[in-house]
Amino acid sequence: MRTRILLSVCIIAFNLNAQENLIQYVNPMVGTQRMGHTYPGATVPFGMVQLSPETDSVQYDLGKSYNKNVYAYCAGYQYDDPTIVGFAHTHFSGTGHSDLGDFLIMPTEGKLQLNPGTANHPAGGYRSNYSHSHEKAEPAYYRVNLTDYNILAELTTSSRVGFHQYTFPQTDSANIILDLSSGIYNHTEKNVWTFLRVENDTLITGYRQTNGWARTRTVYFAMTFNKRIEKYGHHKKDQGPYKGFYRKFNESENFPEMAGQDIVAWFGFKTQDQEKIKIKFALSSVSTEGALQNLFDEIPHWNFEQTKKEGQAFWNRELERIKVETISPDDKKIFYTAMYHSFLSPIIYMDTDRQYRGLDQNTHVAKDFTNYTIFSLWDTYRALHPLFNLIQTKRNSDMVESMLAHYDQSVHPMLPVWSHYANENWCMIGYHSVSVIADAIVKGVYTKNMESALEACVNTASYAPYDGLGYYMDYGYVPEDKNSSSVSKTLEYAYDDWAIAQIAQRTGNSKLTNEFLKRSESFLELFDSKSGFMRPKLANGNFKKSFDPMDTHGQGYIEGNAWNYGLYVPHQPAKLIELMGGQSRFVQMLDSLFTMRLDDKYIEATEDITRDGIIGNYVHGNEPGHHIPYLYNWTDKAWKTQERVRMICKTMYADAPDGLCGNDDCGQMSAWYIFSALGFYPVCPGSLEYAVGSPSVIAATIKMENGKSLIIKTKNQSDKNVYVKKLLFNNKEIKNNKLNHNELAQGGELVFIMSPKHSRK
Amino acid sequence: MRTRILLSVCIIAFNLNAQENLIQYVNPMVGTQRMGHTYPGATVPFGMVQLSPETDSVQYDLGKSYNKNVYAYCAGYQYDDPTIVGFAHTHFSGTGHSDLGDFLIMPTEGKLQLNPGTANHPAGGYRSNYSHSHEKAEPAYYRVNLTDYNILAELTTSSRVGFHQYTFPQTDSANIILDLSSGIYNHTEKNVWTFLRVENDTLITGYRQTNGWARTRTVYFAMTFNKRIEKYGHHKKDQGPYKGFYRKFNESENFPEMAGQDIVAWFGFKTQDQEKIKIKFALSSVSTEGALQNLFDEIPHWNFEQTKKEGQAFWNRELERIKVETISPDDKKIFYTAMYHSFLSPIIYMDTDRQYRGLDQNTHVAKDFTNYTIFSLWDTYRALHPLFNLIQTKRNSDMVESMLAHYDQSVHPMLPVWSHYANENWCMIGYHSVSVIADAIVKGVYTKNMESALEACVNTASYAPYDGLGYYMDYGYVPEDKNSSSVSKTLEYAYDDWAIAQIAQRTGNSKLTNEFLKRSESFLELFDSKSGFMRPKLANGNFKKSFDPMDTHGQGYIEGNAWNYGLYVPHQPAKLIELMGGQSRFVQMLDSLFTMRLDDKYIEATEDITRDGIIGNYVHGNEPGHHIPYLYNWTDKAWKTQERVRMICKTMYADAPDGLCGNDDCGQMSAWYIFSALGFYPVCPGSLEYAVGSPSVIAATIKMENGKSLIIKTKNQSDKNVYVKKLLFNNKEIKNNKLNHNELAQGGELVFIMSPKHSRK
Repeated sequence: MRTRILLSVCIIAFNLNAQENLIQYVNPMVGTQRMGHTYPGATVPFGMVQLSPETDSVQYDLGKSYNKNVYAYCAGYQYDDPTIVGFAHTHFSGTGHSDLGDFLIMPTEGKLQLNPGTANHPAGGYRSNYSHSHEKAEPAYYRVNLTDYNILAELTTSSRVGFHQYTFPQTDSANIILDLSSGIYNHTEKNVWTFLRVENDTLITGYRQTNGWARTRTVYFAMTFNKRIEKYGHHKKDQGPYKGFYRKFNESENFPEMAGQDIVAWFGFKTQDQEKIKIKFALSSVSTEGALQNLFDEIPHWNFEQTKKEGQAFWNRELERIKVETISPDDKKIFYTAMYHSFLSPIIYMDTDRQYRGLDQNTHVAKDFTNYTIFSLWDTYRALHPLFNLIQTKRNSDMVESMLAHYDQSVHPMLPVWSHYANENWCMIGYHSVSVIADAIVKGVYTKNMESALEACVNTASYAPYDGLGYYMDYGYVPEDKNSSSVSKTLEYAYDDWAIAQIAQRTGNSKLTNEFLKRSESFLELFDSKSGFMRPKLANGNFKKSFDPMDTHGQGYIEGNAWNYGLYVPHQPAKLIELMGGQSRFVQMLDSLFTMRLDDKYIEATEDITRDGIIGNYVHGNEPGHHIPYLYNWTDKAWKTQERVRMICKTMYADAPDGLCGNDDCGQMSAWYIFSALGFYPVCPGSLEYAVGSPSVIAATIKMENGKSLIIKTKNQSDKNVYVKKLLFNNKEIKNNKLNHNELAQGGELVFIMSPKHSRK
Repeated sequence: MRTRILLSVCIIAFNLNAQENLIQYVNPMVGTQRMGHTYPGATVPFGMVQLSPETDSVQYDLGKSYNKNVYAYCAGYQYDDPTIVGFAHTHFSGTGHSDLGDFLIMPTEGKLQLNPGTANHPAGGYRSNYSHSHEKAEPAYYRVNLTDYNILAELTTSSRVGFHQYTFPQTDSANIILDLSSGIYNHTEKNVWTFLRVENDTLITGYRQTNGWARTRTVYFAMTFNKRIEKYGHHKKDQGPYKGFYRKFNESENFPEMAGQDIVAWFGFKTQDQEKIKIKFALSSVSTEGALQNLFDEIPHWNFEQTKKEGQAFWNRELERIKVETISPDDKKIFYTAMYHSFLSPIIYMDTDRQYRGLDQNTHVAKDFTNYTIFSLWDTYRALHPLFNLIQTKRNSDMVESMLAHYDQSVHPMLPVWSHYANENWCMIGYHSVSVIADAIVKGVYTKNMESALEACVNTASYAPYDGLGYYMDYGYVPEDKNSSSVSKTLEYAYDDWAIAQIAQRTGNSKLTNEFLKRSESFLELFDSKSGFMRPKLANGNFKKSFDPMDTHGQGYIEGNAWNYGLYVPHQPAKLIELMGGQSRFVQMLDSLFTMRLDDKYIEATEDITRDGIIGNYVHGNEPGHHIPYLYNWTDKAWKTQERVRMICKTMYADAPDGLCGNDDCGQMSAWYIFSALGFYPVCPGSLEYAVGSPSVIAATIKMENGKSLIIKTKNQSDKNVYVKKLLFNNKEIKNNKLNHNELAQGGELVFIMSPKHSRK
């Protein structure tokens, strides 16, 4: 046995140094079924273009109210759908709210149809049937047969340019539809304006302006064909008068300037059999001029294979930041798919000349940083940004700069809450930018403008009109009768305030340190020793009377119940345990959480997850509890963390379309997996401490941007040997189940000695 | 008598050299009653801001169809209206179609009302009663008492910044309404999007995006108060969801970011008695950043009087390009009011940093010229641009550059037809940019890029999809059965082609010269020797059968009938006369035109004029006939031109609100007056020739930008002595009733010796 283990270690060491084609382990289909809300299409790491199929679009007749159908299409694609409507250029990855879906392109053959049709009757519109057996999704490459038209569709991208390649049969009626009315969002009139110019016989420019989740958003494009357009035209639903026309032009055909609320344009060609119509489609937030420059700068040729190759090489470079050897081949796929999903957002949000449109709608220049957007911060501050502080430090520093630029441009004195495309949509609660900034500062990743960063954080945390924050500052907690979800808000504000104190401390501001440390104890106000839960309190100081700790609605929480969300004191777990009656009682409580049987009514009311995303009453499919499995570490039953983490890794993630148990939430769900698979987790971002879990990998090499490597090895690793018998860092035993980021960041070797049995402790 | 004449000449000479306050002779109220369509508000010469009262706005319930009510409010103000709705920042001067009216501001006191109310029930909204006795309009200054609120409103401007000064009573409820939903246009949903940020307690920025006559137009603003805003808020009709709000903010009050289709914002103050709330309001086509820079650059202080003084000094500098002495004081007012109206458009269309938004919606920089917009070319090519070639040569050269920039940015290979704010609205017919360019080139005013200019003109004249132009090129005329208004179009194209030939000739391109000279004879195709009129012809070569030369509708003409418009061959009057049976018969025809009695039904069907704008069947209130009074010059009855011109000057223009007999059309009607009052007129722009008329002034000094002056003197001038007995230029007698522009431009003395009796000839 011993010999065999040594042998396997050798093999691992060899593999880790080889040039490996890691993209083979990525399955972009993971999460496309049920509630993962990922998309299968082509994109490059942190790329502005996400060129991906839509399997249904929000129909105008769905009405204005938010509904499940819209929710299902947050990323445009649902695995079980039988038809593809077209290929759009922008998509969120894993969100629980919808937007984007800009610039839908669909190739068709034969009769020109300018409406999408329906899944039940695809022949009534431009959509097509397809089958998964003739579909392939890889990083930076997507392919599908559009069976209704006998057209092979292939997609690849650079950062800002989508590259389409459509192989047609021989026909006099090859059509490319560009539907500017199509988009993802639950609003009948999302489109504010669309504008399109046929600049010459191969080049189109234009823009789409929407009022969606992003209230005021314009995306510009430049689109070019590899073949001369024979004829073109458009249809629009609105018939706003363009006075001059009625005497002068036929606006609908071969008129090169189209404008209106919802343009559907078409371009007609003749093709030989197997002829490829190629399209390069560049985006910009600034102007069509910017889009055109992006197009020239990024893909100055017509070689689809070259762009695909470059995109996939880009992915390999990013993925090899962590090389792992896993127990099973599936685990390797799960790991690299998680890496892939972690590197999809935030996205680059600037042109090649560094210009971008800001919150003030003016054009800004990101002089000395790369500007990013799509900050789903209530999700991603937990593990995604901490992951970046380990393996994407340059990008994370730039993301902090991007958040500070947001702050500078915003008319509210606030850092982003949930922002995308220079719009604040105010989704979810807290002001977790401050956590991301604190974590980056504490870990030495962000070093540029510390004082400005502190000022931005303090002002954010002092903006009284925001979401009960004025009450929080006045009362020391958010009173439920003043502002709902008051417990969740109080707990998150308290943690965020602790994070601000860390920044204040690093910049030597003891006044602010003390002020925010004091604020960070506000969670104490809401603990009800009688019920043993964090509980909503009223302005008069009394707890709200009726209280159901199992319910996620109306109990002072949002997207979580008191059992889960009430454990949210990441900066003071020991204090929380003390409040809850000490270690023994706390362990009992955690055990109950993971094992209790939840009534169906509670399961059905739980947001953003599938039934598979729940273990007992523990919800892994949503974020508030992501730190909970690690809380046993603060008791004498740390082995229970190890057990639970391995169980979650094994049951909540899979290499399958339904392989995510809830929304991936811009990579947070995947980042949780990556940390946990490596054996540690950042329970409290803003501190240097990682809680030790149980690695599911056999070995890993983490290449950091400082040139150092952290090598993770296991001994006696197997699916059954989930308990950490001994942990060594650079040959020194770690006895407290804690690792220090700064020490790990200096590189070295972390050796987990695994066991099928847990220690007493 | 002789002594007296000499004395008066001496006095005139003295006056002409004095520094005169010419703005005292300008009455901005002229044309505000009936169909002049001018506005009385404050503006500087060619200024981007036209800050002027609205006496009614287009109500949403007026429906979509174009109607007289909308037409009446092309400039926002109708003299007979009893109420003022507010003060908006952009207005056309004298057009026959509506748009603009951006950013309506209204001060109110007491109850906050966010709807405009109605003229019948002003107390139901924010509008106020007013009276002309407490109203004053001067160049760059407008003042009115808003009697419902006891507020004195005063307005002045710089080129890009409107300056408001409102004197309030003592109140705790002083309100400033900023209605972004208000505008001028006959469309229920003109607004595409409005956006507003309260940047701090004195500064607001934002924009308004419209789909009006300009199909895609965005104007940005920066607005600052001299006093801190106490509270603010907004209302909007559309209730598009902004998801994050419902839990977090009260969007309607003190929320600093407003967006939606039709924001009506308000700002609340407390005032002492007689306290002035001042507002500076800057425009930009580029961005709010550009607007703010314009504000800082142009009015960096709060001294209303200083801005007014500078604006009025600017006017005096522009007006004194021509100094006149007139027979009556009224004539002087009419003259300088005409000068004023001639200098209102085109307007400057770029920020102080020379950036502006182009037709491609991208930001452009006018490197070495001032960019202008609002080109009402079917009107203004006739006399306004020729006037500029005499007294505004720098500006006219830049206007040519602006038109060429339009050509470069347009996705159509065409120069502007009727363009404003980087939008082509395709109004009226022809491609008269080429006339403006030819006139500027022939007169040596435009000298920069002659080859590019020629190319732009030729491509414009070769764009087959445009308005029957393809048929024109194929058939040699526009066939009425292929494209309506075919005679008007053929005649105008023919003239424009002649203008292009002039440019081709100047650049030495004999091929194009010949080609376009040939095209310029296409008018010959449509003369029907049987009826004696220009008559619509069908594609088969036959004239259209039914034909009523009195009717302006359905007879192959637009906004004119065969009697008037059929005389439109400005480049070959002699040929026209020959076609029409020779001089004697032609004179008879002109005499009939001016003296015949027109049936009421024809008068009612005549566009854009009042009944007063017609003399017999001659329509002075619209443009197609503006050259007609001068056509006698090509016969042996030139004295009839002199008689008619003086008659028109006397009867069609007045110093009164209804002092314009039709739309001023961006200064064309006024420019006709200026030329005619000086004694000559450019019948055929693109040639150097002026036709001599009969001056109505006693004397004039025209200061040209080359440093030369043209001095006009009369002898024996009076209202009765309308005939030119003798004409001397630099002491040399002019015998052919023609003057040469290049000779006049070298300066000198033009002496008209007037007589109460005409010569035989």
